[in-house]
Amino acid sequence: MCRKGYEATSMNDIADAVGLTKAGIYHYIHGKENLLFAIMSYAMDMVDEDVMAPARKVMDAEQRLRTIVERHAKRILEVGGAVTILLEEMYALTPAHRRTITSRKRAYFDLIRRTLQQLAAEGKLRDVNPTVATFCLFGMILWISRWYHRDGKLTPQDVLTDLVQTAVNAVMKTSAAQSRRRTVVAR
Amino acid sequence: MCRKGYEATSMNDIADAVGLTKAGIYHYIHGKENLLFAIMSYAMDMVDEDVMAPARKVMDAEQRLRTIVERHAKRILEVGGAVTILLEEMYALTPAHRRTITSRKRAYFDLIRRTLQQLAAEGKLRDVNPTVATFCLFGMILWISRWYHRDGKLTPQDVLTDLVQTAVNAVMKTSAAQSRRRTVVAR
Repeated sequence: MCRKGYEATSMNDIADAVGLTKAGIYHYIHGKENLLFAIMSYAMDMVDEDVMAPARKVMDAEQRLRTIVERHAKRILEVGGAVTILLEEMYALTPAHRRTITSRKRAYFDLIRRTLQQLAAEGKLRDVNPTVATFCLFGMILWISRWYHRDGKLTPQDVLTDLVQTAVNAVMKTSAAQSRRRTVVAR
Repeated sequence: MCRKGYEATSMNDIADAVGLTKAGIYHYIHGKENLLFAIMSYAMDMVDEDVMAPARKVMDAEQRLRTIVERHAKRILEVGGAVTILLEEMYALTPAHRRTITSRKRAYFDLIRRTLQQLAAEGKLRDVNPTVATFCLFGMILWISRWYHRDGKLTPQDVLTDLVQTAVNAVMKTSAAQSRRRTVVAR
């Protein structure tokens, strides 16, 4: 499903991939849509545990933003982006499943936007709409799933360092981001 | 095809959409893959004419970067992102068609990366790998196709202004970007 895309994958393909008959596979999963929903729920569980939970513990808005970008990008770079791409297949879900995933995505979006709003209140955000800025951050992070290949020249750490710098400077005033960088260097 | 995705769309759906019988539609298009290739070729023609050709006439690297981001984002915001999303369906193409589209995408990628390399030579690029920076710009621009709805609160011009600012500051040192902004204001 990750390799061929959701629509192009048949229950036969799935049965072949796990070494079961088509009849056997229905003992474990009740159809393709249920499997897609389970994969998406797993992906959102990972975002909850690996990104949102640690970020919520960080009080400083800039540090929270860095935590979110770094943890999410690191996961896609190290684990691979196939599941991230499947998270786009919203139209394939039943209405009830789509509502569940939409509301989980929304909670993540809101966490980032609230962080940017906090930066704006502190005078550290560029003069941009926090909603547009949030989508710019999502574009940079989620797009990694489309282009990064672990067998290429760039290591996950190379990409991560540059991506965090690019993403933070995209939305934060440089004076704010730079003064923090100087503090870190001085330590 | 834009609404349901490539795989979920049948030749019957296409015939219905244009008011022809399934037999009639084959008079005009020789199968679904040919139609997808024609749509992707059209999308790349638009990038050539609307983005790459005007950008190639701009000698100044920063101004060329702004031209590329602004023209591409404007097109997605004003025309809609459905065709941009279809450009992702590379696995559905025949090998020969895939080579053609890949080489056209590559030419566009190279134009942006060369622009960033020129900025780096001028000391205006952040200390980031130009390849990673190019993909960050693509992520911000192409992601618009997934989130922007013209019936929402944000006008295309609202988003465009913020997106250009965010994208340019993501990759350029702020001292360089700011001095240019001051020049513009002073005119």
